[in-house]
Amino acid sequence: MSSNTEIQWKGYAVHDTKLWDQFKVTDFKPKGMEDKDIDIKIEYCGVCGSDIHTITGGWGEVRLPLISGHEITGHVVRVGPKVTEFKVGDRVGLGLVSTIHIYSLGNTDTSIQAHKSALAMIVNDARTGQRTSGYATAIRANELFVFRIPDALPLEQAAPMLCAGITTYSPLRTNGAGPGKSVGVIGIGGLGHYALQFAKAMKSDKVVAFSHSENKKADALALGATDFVNTGAKNWVEEWTDTLDIILVERIELTNVSQHIPLSDIFATLKVHGRCIMLALPDGALPPIQPFSLIASGVLLGGSHIGSKAEIVEMLDLAAKEGVKSYIEMLPMKEVGKAVQGMKAGKG
Amino acid sequence: MSSNTEIQWKGYAVHDTKLWDQFKVTDFKPKGMEDKDIDIKIEYCGVCGSDIHTITGGWGEVRLPLISGHEITGHVVRVGPKVTEFKVGDRVGLGLVSTIHIYSLGNTDTSIQAHKSALAMIVNDARTGQRTSGYATAIRANELFVFRIPDALPLEQAAPMLCAGITTYSPLRTNGAGPGKSVGVIGIGGLGHYALQFAKAMKSDKVVAFSHSENKKADALALGATDFVNTGAKNWVEEWTDTLDIILVERIELTNVSQHIPLSDIFATLKVHGRCIMLALPDGALPPIQPFSLIASGVLLGGSHIGSKAEIVEMLDLAAKEGVKSYIEMLPMKEVGKAVQGMKAGKG
Repeated sequence: MSSNTEIQWKGYAVHDTKLWDQFKVTDFKPKGMEDKDIDIKIEYCGVCGSDIHTITGGWGEVRLPLISGHEITGHVVRVGPKVTEFKVGDRVGLGLVSTIHIYSLGNTDTSIQAHKSALAMIVNDARTGQRTSGYATAIRANELFVFRIPDALPLEQAAPMLCAGITTYSPLRTNGAGPGKSVGVIGIGGLGHYALQFAKAMKSDKVVAFSHSENKKADALALGATDFVNTGAKNWVEEWTDTLDIILVERIELTNVSQHIPLSDIFATLKVHGRCIMLALPDGALPPIQPFSLIASGVLLGGSHIGSKAEIVEMLDLAAKEGVKSYIEMLPMKEVGKAVQGMKAGKG
Repeated sequence: MSSNTEIQWKGYAVHDTKLWDQFKVTDFKPKGMEDKDIDIKIEYCGVCGSDIHTITGGWGEVRLPLISGHEITGHVVRVGPKVTEFKVGDRVGLGLVSTIHIYSLGNTDTSIQAHKSALAMIVNDARTGQRTSGYATAIRANELFVFRIPDALPLEQAAPMLCAGITTYSPLRTNGAGPGKSVGVIGIGGLGHYALQFAKAMKSDKVVAFSHSENKKADALALGATDFVNTGAKNWVEEWTDTLDIILVERIELTNVSQHIPLSDIFATLKVHGRCIMLALPDGALPPIQPFSLIASGVLLGGSHIGSKAEIVEMLDLAAKEGVKSYIEMLPMKEVGKAVQGMKAGKG
């Protein structure tokens, strides 16, 4: 009996996007095993905001039944004949597969093409309703997309780092956070709490938490903030003008609403050629951008979309070394419906 | 008799923003001479799109009469006692004074503060209607804001480089144009024609001109483009996806209209972590931006706002060395009204 047949390929599937919090245990057949594939027995899977967009149909039509989830950790239980990175028993993780991620795996046209095919395959799985995703017993994937989890990092801690974590780590790394640099973070939730910790772990000179609520101050300082700015205070923009190299904005569409911060004020906090990076994605277009506010100091605006495999491996090592913590609530997987309800209600 | 008293302080001034093309010869008094100031006898002054925004009142109220113009070249005719960089007779230029420009002149808080004061002074001059600008016989300015023009560069060629030129040169330099990099340019007008030439002069591997009109092909190739893309052709986006490191967009608000290029297509041409830089500024907000189009490859969006003094000096040297040409129409200054009419009609 091969180890493959020992796996129960079952997942918690949504069968109707209107009943997006009603998960049913559903059998599924994984994609065919290929030479570089490994099977992972899933121990943990984080719940991400994008799961909500997906299972509610908010990001477009999906083929049903749908098994979601992409912050996966577990153990390798089977390896294909050409797998070189992993062996049975290894502690591993698997996250979202994105363009950036794929491109980072090779720099020849051939490898990019191969990885594009791999992405297409995974996307096709999702579209045919056979998506082998994380709210399940197991997943099969090309080893290129799999990361080793450092021994010092508990699997449940590592899981949300594979999406929420790398979404904050990658722009910090790409835009040069570290000694000599000042980093601002607007919003201290599922993404912002990593942003403060990673900016600090990278030894940035200043890590500035911005919040409209003084209640967040103790949390922000505990997470590594060197400064806390109450955006309800008068003159905070004047005081922080031209001070930051990078500012990460957890939910850019909320800055005008819940945070009462116009984009122009966010840009004003940046030094010449500073970077403003939005983390989570709004449903529609970005808030209107006045070009003068963007060019006065020649700042750049971008978004984050996980990161490369090299960055994910580096992030996991840094998290293990510097004690970066995921603030998580643990639930048994059969309560995934409760977990997505909580995420949609903004508790995630 | 000092050389100061030899200067006729006269300019071509707009006296009513509704009559923005009616210039009258107007006497003015320059700001008080300070130790680091120099007086420049103006030989040439370029006409910039922002002059039109200013004299028509399109960018807000101005104190009248107003002398505009900020692409100035001429000769030094007087130097203050603490001037160290220049002497009487030097060939010099003076452009727009911006935040970036000022910040680049020093990196201590004190020098930034001093330069901010200098900017405030110039802005105040403009607001009191005493702006000592380029459609005039002479201008007085702190030597920090003045650039030496290389001997090989004719003064009339150098003038528009001090605004239009540096607006394209600076983002190319800042974002790494040069060997190994591919640069795209959308729009081949007053800014785009410099973008093609400078990208080529910096030895970029590819310089790709995008236009909806096949008629622009010969011009684009003559200016240094290695490739010409007709955006009216089918499949051009697919063909150029993931190919460019930097794309400069002459007038971002026109891409949807005259060029028929959605922003998402512009972003798609960029490689992972590529940069899209808008050159001229639209009147209102930027076109709506769909966040997925921005994050798919983690690209950054920014604008250009001239550049640092070091960059301007470097640009002038490169232009002299590589034979970068300003495509200009020469008019006597008394015909400034005709010049601004031409610019407003889109001939600039």
